[in-house]
Order: sequence, then structure tokens, then C-alpha cells
Amino acid sequence: MPAPALADTHIDNIEGISVARDGSIDRFGGMVVDEDGRISELLDFGDRPTREIDYRIDGEGRVVVPGFVDGHLHVMDIGLGTLVLDLSETNSLQEALSRIASYAAAYPDRPWIIGRGWNQERWGLGRFPTAAELDAITSDRPIWLERVDGHAGWGNSMALAAGNITAETKDPVGGRIERLEGSRAPSGVLVDTAMEMVDNAVPPPLPEDRDLAFYNAQRLLLRHGITAVADMGTSVEDWMTFRRAGDAGRLQMRVMSYADSVDTMLLIGGPAPTQWLYDDRLRLNGVKLYLDGALGSRGALLKADYSDDHGNRGLPILNGTQLRNLMSRAALDNFQVAVHAIGDAANADALNAIEELSRDYSGDRRWRIEHAQIVDSADLPRFGEHGVIASMQPVHQTSDMMMAEARLGEVRLGGAYAWRSILQAGGKLAFGTDAPVEPVDPMAGLAVAISRTNADGEPFGGWHPDEAINREQALAAYTAGAAYAGFAEGRFGSLAEGERADFVFLSADPLMANAADMRKIEVLETWIAGQRVFDVEIESR
Amino acid sequence: MPAPALADTHIDNIEGISVARDGSIDRFGGMVVDEDGRISELLDFGDRPTREIDYRIDGEGRVVVPGFVDGHLHVMDIGLGTLVLDLSETNSLQEALSRIASYAAAYPDRPWIIGRGWNQERWGLGRFPTAAELDAITSDRPIWLERVDGHAGWGNSMALAAGNITAETKDPVGGRIERLEGSRAPSGVLVDTAMEMVDNAVPPPLPEDRDLAFYNAQRLLLRHGITAVADMGTSVEDWMTFRRAGDAGRLQMRVMSYADSVDTMLLIGGPAPTQWLYDDRLRLNGVKLYLDGALGSRGALLKADYSDDHGNRGLPILNGTQLRNLMSRAALDNFQVAVHAIGDAANADALNAIEELSRDYSGDRRWRIEHAQIVDSADLPRFGEHGVIASMQPVHQTSDMMMAEARLGEVRLGGAYAWRSILQAGGKLAFGTDAPVEPVDPMAGLAVAISRTNADGEPFGGWHPDEAINREQALAAYTAGAAYAGFAEGRFGSLAEGERADFVFLSADPLMANAADMRKIEVLETWIAGQRVFDVEIESR
Repeated sequence: MPAPALADTHIDNIEGISVARDGSIDRFGGMVVDEDGRISELLDFGDRPTREIDYRIDGEGRVVVPGFVDGHLHVMDIGLGTLVLDLSETNSLQEALSRIASYAAAYPDRPWIIGRGWNQERWGLGRFPTAAELDAITSDRPIWLERVDGHAGWGNSMALAAGNITAETKDPVGGRIERLEGSRAPSGVLVDTAMEMVDNAVPPPLPEDRDLAFYNAQRLLLRHGITAVADMGTSVEDWMTFRRAGDAGRLQMRVMSYADSVDTMLLIGGPAPTQWLYDDRLRLNGVKLYLDGALGSRGALLKADYSDDHGNRGLPILNGTQLRNLMSRAALDNFQVAVHAIGDAANADALNAIEELSRDYSGDRRWRIEHAQIVDSADLPRFGEHGVIASMQPVHQTSDMMMAEARLGEVRLGGAYAWRSILQAGGKLAFGTDAPVEPVDPMAGLAVAISRTNADGEPFGGWHPDEAINREQALAAYTAGAAYAGFAEGRFGSLAEGERADFVFLSADPLMANAADMRKIEVLETWIAGQRVFDVEIESR
Repeated sequence: MPAPALADTHIDNIEGISVARDGSIDRFGGMVVDEDGRISELLDFGDRPTREIDYRIDGEGRVVVPGFVDGHLHVMDIGLGTLVLDLSETNSLQEALSRIASYAAAYPDRPWIIGRGWNQERWGLGRFPTAAELDAITSDRPIWLERVDGHAGWGNSMALAAGNITAETKDPVGGRIERLEGSRAPSGVLVDTAMEMVDNAVPPPLPEDRDLAFYNAQRLLLRHGITAVADMGTSVEDWMTFRRAGDAGRLQMRVMSYADSVDTMLLIGGPAPTQWLYDDRLRLNGVKLYLDGALGSRGALLKADYSDDHGNRGLPILNGTQLRNLMSRAALDNFQVAVHAIGDAANADALNAIEELSRDYSGDRRWRIEHAQIVDSADLPRFGEHGVIASMQPVHQTSDMMMAEARLGEVRLGGAYAWRSILQAGGKLAFGTDAPVEPVDPMAGLAVAISRTNADGEPFGGWHPDEAINREQALAAYTAGAAYAGFAEGRFGSLAEGERADFVFLSADPLMANAADMRKIEVLETWIAGQRVFDVEIESR
């Protein structure tokens, strides 16, 4: 475990902002952090600590907010993504091939060369690349590279062989094997579900790669001022990685974990959620369940047909009975339940299930609905009942708005990304990013939340701007709200006395910024439990 | 974690015995335990501590030895065994049926009634019991009861159905389905490998049962003065159970864990053995590998045919290549390797593999051979090379001696249970019990080690008495030796300054006892890290 500071520290001369879950704000000028890393005293501007202190840190008048809490992301996916070859900045096939060759030479022991981010449009290639072009680099190790949008994969001949893909292989349902012109022979690119044949042959990460991935993910998150996360879909391997980090004193951020299945949940937690481990740095809260798919692939469950695919209302991942059985098994032993629901039918059924289960499982359950993207307006008030938490990702709104219009048509968008309506109904908001699906940057999330516009300021005036919320509400959903959603209030999230001193120095006051300025706010320093874990000056040297 | 004593404690007025791995003994009259539970000072008889102390414990002149370290057992099997119905004391079928009915009534939620210990000979029944007799108790839950020797199982009709056993089912190789007289219909008892059909249908323990099982196992071990164990074959479920105990401050004893496979080892440890967790109470040291079976079932690998089964030399569980590959994978990342080897051929091959691997994997590896029961005399000197540890269970010698003579004939017994020869060759001994295969009682192990006789004093003069060792060597193998075998020297096992204060008050001095008296020595109190965790006076009230 990290050594406690073993001293009382006075963080002085700051523009401190503490945030309650309801969006109410207190401003303060300094704080005292005790030897356990907890805030023992918040000080008015100019006030001195009431107790003797050992150290004084001069905040130089900078803005301090609670450390950001990302309420929905995938720690290990973020981290493992940092270990693969990134081709997203390449501007020609030639440049990409050169990068691949360098990478292969740099990592002679990796059994596969894995990468992502290529885009033949950006290269101006006018065609897909081929296996033969990769074979020229190496034919003794598989190379497997995902396209920028995740919907195609490019492999060398060894990768195709590992997926058992030959001229005889038929295109799978929902996918396509690109063929050489005038031939059945695979050309090297696999589209959509055809990718799975090679994906399934990719060996799992090595244990040391998992530890490195965790380290990289944590660094990235701390750099963005994120001091706590909800990890959605923790596998046993992921959990062991978190514990190794905790055991070795390398776990700095706080992880609220939701197991990837009821089996994993029971394996880790046994008869109950785990303790808060490593001084409030890790806890298995419960389980993540998938009720439907996503809008992009038309897997989200809708009450009526997709506007751009008549006859299709999405695909359920769990049926209603399965969902209720799994929720019940978790709730029986006080595990928290987080249900992925994107379409309006999925959200309605998740709310139905919560309503039904609340009869047997009373008390403070904090049922979570993850994403809650498309909600029938008639269902919005139900977020105010049974303590339901809407765990939402503001940036999804701007990433998805064009697609949502195409999939749903204008008339069904009244309850889309409906942060304000959910708050008004008495629902509880927790904000996050779904990283690596979206970048981890909380400033982008805050900017979208208050403006309903993307980084280009589009659409002018905001998309369905009635659902924007104010700065205080947005900051609360990204701090105290997301902490509450993981039963962490009183431990972190608010910058209140008695909580762990997790905070961030910002380059400007987010409660005074417009959306454009919000995106420019920099994280200068990140502190967890009264210890500095990121300093932009040191890292940028 | 358990609260530290937060005070310096003087354990005064004791007949203290500290033990080095080589069997050398120091006697002392008191010790000072610091606030971390470590021994800060050993005191001569009558000496006062050099530092001021907060508490004084009067040992009343009693004998104190290091806490016993059981070098090979199965924690969860011990614990799960406590949860099932114990029929070993029943004296008639009627009494057994009555016990089964009470148990079924007491545990209405258990999906299966599981028990063990029945013996139709003890009942004077003159036949095996039947499924019908159990059906009269309950036919809506399976009942499955193991015979006292583990070689037969007695089920009701639901248990037989769960194993898909019908009149049409043929006897499997190595097993027998008992049939009703004059019929092919199964009578209810399954012998040897036929048991597996039902065993495989038994549901895994509930998470809360695992935690209870661990608690029971720990209590049993502490009651016998065992303060540390090597858990041989830790599954992921077992490990999670240990961690839950540690996280909740319920882990009192020290567990050195050997994973049940290389996969489990890598899942838990990742790129290396874990840290010592919970103040030296848990560590994943490495992996347990099985090279052969056991003597009883003639699975132990022999250099020549079994004397009582010509043409049979046992069955290898791993071939030589597999063994070396797995050992190599573990050693690559400094995981410790413990190889189960019982027969002389298995021991020879384990020694060969260690010799070969020692070339690539140098340094302090502490290769372990578990059991090392039957060793070709020609191979005994090889235990002195490459730091090999012989992890042996003295009580196996008296349990197995008749069988060993039948299986091997007199001429091959020169290197059987050869503790003295292994020590003389420079090998390192670690003693344990293989519990629940043998009872956990260390006094029985010490008595056998010094006498080669069983609890009845048989055979007179001892079985191959040349291989008996002296009291000091036996105590060392059961304390410092077993600690060293798990890389724990300096942490516990010797009662030396700087080590954790793990010790036991005994009713008499084991270094002054003959074998018969040794078995009568009682554990009065057990202390771990300077805290009392068992007190016979309190427990027997």
C-alpha cells in the first residue's frame, strides 16, 4: 500500500470548489489533509487551519475541483489499446507499412502484431490494402490490424490462416470476406462479423502486458484528472490485475468494479460485495448485465421499427426472464446491478424489472441503467422512482446524433440523451465516457452536457438543447453523482470534510466557462488522498 | 487487516525453544513482541527486556515452540469436509439413517445432502446399504454419502439419476456399480471409479459455504498449533476465498499457496509470485504439478512392476516433456515448482527434470518434490543437489507401510519414507500431513518421525527404523524447514529475533518426549504475530 503522507498538509491559496450531488456548490480557500489522506478541514478564504500543520502547499490561487469520477468505462480495454500499434495518424499505405515494419522489429517476442486505426480513405488508396502487402513485412508472425471504425480488419496470410479463412470459406451472416479480383481467394480484409474468425484466434494478453496495460490506463486517466472510475464488465483477469496493482502499491486511482457476469461476481465477491480495499481504492460493487446492443449496429431494442430498417426492432441479449433472474441473484446478496440499456424498449424493460424487483429487494439498491440513451418520453418520469441511477456518457450524444436521427426519426428523440428531464424527474445522474469508446477527457463531457454541441460547436444552438443541464449539475454528475452511483459518497467525489482528498488543479474555472472554453481547460495537477499523482509541468518536461 | 497490538509485549516465564532449519536448538526464557507482532528480543532465563514494555504475559513456566508449519495440505478440502454430514461414528444402519434425516431437516436449502464416513462393517450389516433406504428419507433431493475409506459411495435414487446410472449402465474401468440381487438395477452403492459419475453431478459449493469452510479449517488448524500452511493445489475459487478472509481481517494463519495449474498461477500471480500479503499471511509461491498417482490405486510410477500387479508400473499424469514445459514456464518467471512424485520412477524423473532445468534456471529455486515416498536408494543422494526440498508427510509412513510392502516387496523399501537418508544426503526436509488425507495433528507426525511406529506403537522397534530422525530434526522439519520450503525464513518458523511471533504453548517438552508421550502433548495456546488465536481453556469451557 502507498505510504501515507504521515503529516498534516495545508493546501493553501486555492479557489476551491466542493460539489454536492444535487449540484449545489461551496467555494473555499484552502484545506487541511490529514495523515490518512482525508480532508480534515475546509477553510474559508484567508482562514488559517485550526490545528498545527506539518506542510503547506501554495496553490497559487488556482482552481481546485473534486477529482473527476468516470461512471462508466473499461479500464483494461483502455490500457490494452495503448499496447497495440496505432496507425490512425498514417497518411499513406507506404507510411503505414513502414510503421508496421518498425513495430515488428521493435517487438520481436510478440506472437502477433496487433494494430488499429488504418483508413484507406485517408491514404487516398482507392481500394482496401491486401494481405500480400503485409506478407512482404513478415510472413512468420500473424499481423492483424483493425480499421479506424472497428468494422474491418486487415491481416497477413498467417492471420487469415489462423482464422481458417480460405477461398472456400463463405461470407458469414453480417460479414464479408474481401476477395482478390476475379477470384475467391481472400484479399486480406475482413468486414464486420467476418473479423471474428481471426479475432478468436488472437492469443490473450500476457500477464505482464495486462499489468503494463493497467499502468498505462491509470496514467492516462490521472493525466485527465480522473481519480476514480466505474469499471464496467470486470473479468477475473481484470480483477487479478487490479489486485496485483493494489498489492504492489501501484493502484493510485479508485476503481469501482462491476463484474462481467454473475459467475465472476460470485467468484470474486463470494457472499457479498467486497470490502473497500487499499484505502478505498478498489471494491467489487456488483455486476454489469447487457440487455440490448447499440444503435450503430441496430442492436438497441426499440418499441417500434428502426426508421432506417423496417421490420427490425433490435436484438435482445437477455430475455426478460433471464434479466430478472440475474438481477435477482445479484440483489439477493446485496450486489449492485448495472443494466446496459440503449433503446427505448430496453430502457422500459429495465425500468419494469427494477420496479418488480424493488418489491422483494427493498432498501438502498441504487439500480443503475447504463447509457439510457433512447428513452420513451412516457418512461422518463420513472427514473425518479426506486432510486434509479442513469449512468450516461454526454459525448455519446454528439457522436451519435446524426445516427440517432437516421435510426429513430425526429419524433422519437424527445427522450434521447435526456439529462435534464431525468434530473427533473428526480433521477440520479452519473456521467462518464464509456472509454475507450470515447476519449477519457472529462472537459469534453462537461462541454457537451452544457451545450449539446460537439467540438466544432455543431449544431449551432445545440441538439435538442432543452436537455442541456447547467455547469453545476454537469460537474456534480461527473464527480459526486458518479461517486454516489458506486456507493462511494463520504469516501470521495465531493471535496467535503471527512472524504479522501482527491482533487484536481485546473487552468480555469469550469463553472465560469462556455462550452468552447470548457474544452480548453487543462488539468494541471491531479491529487489522490492528498498525494500528487500527476503534474503537467513534470510530465511535459 | 487485524489491528496490530500497538504495544510492546513481554512474554515472560516460558521454556522457549527456537529452532533452526538444521535442527539446532536454542532455549530461552522470554521474548519481547513489538507492535507489528515481530519478535524484537529473545531473553535468557531471568533476564529483563532492554526496552520498556507495555504488557507482560506470564507464561507460567510452560513450554513454547515455534508455531507448526504444515508443508503440504489442502485448506479448502479440510474446510469443506467439515460442512458435510459425518457418519463415521454411527454404529448401525438405523442410527445412520436417523442422522441423515436430522441433517436433511436441519439444512432444507442445501440442494444435495452430502456426507461421508459410513462403514457397513462397523454396523454389522453384512451387506451394502441401498438407495431405497435413503429414498425413505427423501426422494426430492439427491443424497450422496462416501464410505469411510473413500472407495465407495451410497446414493439415493435421485443421486443415481443425477449420475445417469441405470440398469443399462455398464461398470466403468476400475469401478463397479452394485446391483440388486437377481437384477441389473443399481442397488445404490458405487465402487471406486463408478463414484465419479455421481461426483461429477454434485454442484459446487456456494460462496458462503466456501467462506465458512475456510473459517472451519483455520479454526481446526489453530487448535492444533498450526500457524502456517502450504496449500497444495489452490484453485481460483480457493484463492478468492483466502483473499476475502484477508480483506475482512479474518485471515489469521499464514498460507503459502501453490496453484493447481500453470494457468491458475499466471491468472493470480501474473508476471511473478505475489507479494507477501496481509502482513505475511498469504503469498502465491508457485504451482503444484502432478507427475504420478498414489500407491493405493497403483498409480505411482515405478521403475519395475508392482509386486502385487505384474506388468503394471503405474500411470504417468504428465509425460516428461509436459512436466519440463510446465516447470520451465513457472521457473521462467521465478514461480516455485512443487512436483507430486510418489513412486521411485516418478521421483527419479522429477530429479532428472530438476537437474536439467537447473542449468537454465539458476539461483535459489527451492525445487520441491511432494511426498517423495518411494525413492530408489541410488537416487537418494541426488536430493542433496540443486537445493531440492523433500516435502514429506511422516504419518503416511505408518498409514501406508503394509500396503507399501505389498505393492513393492521388501527389497525396494530401502528408500521408502527415507527422511534420515535424505537429510544425510544434504536434502532439505519439510514436514506436513496432506490433510484431509491424514489428520492435521503435528504431534502424531513428530511421533512417527522419531519412531517409525503408529499410534499403537506398531511395529515394535519401528518400521525400517534406520530412517527415523531425532526430535530436533523432526521439529525443525515441521517448523523452520517447512517455512524455508516456502521462502518464508526470516518471516516465521524459527522463533528468532525479527520474525513474526508465531508460537504455541505446549503441555510438555517435545524434545524430552518418547513417541507415546509425544502423541499426548496438548496444544494449550496458539499465538500468531503476538496475538492469541487459540486458548484451550476458553475453547473447552
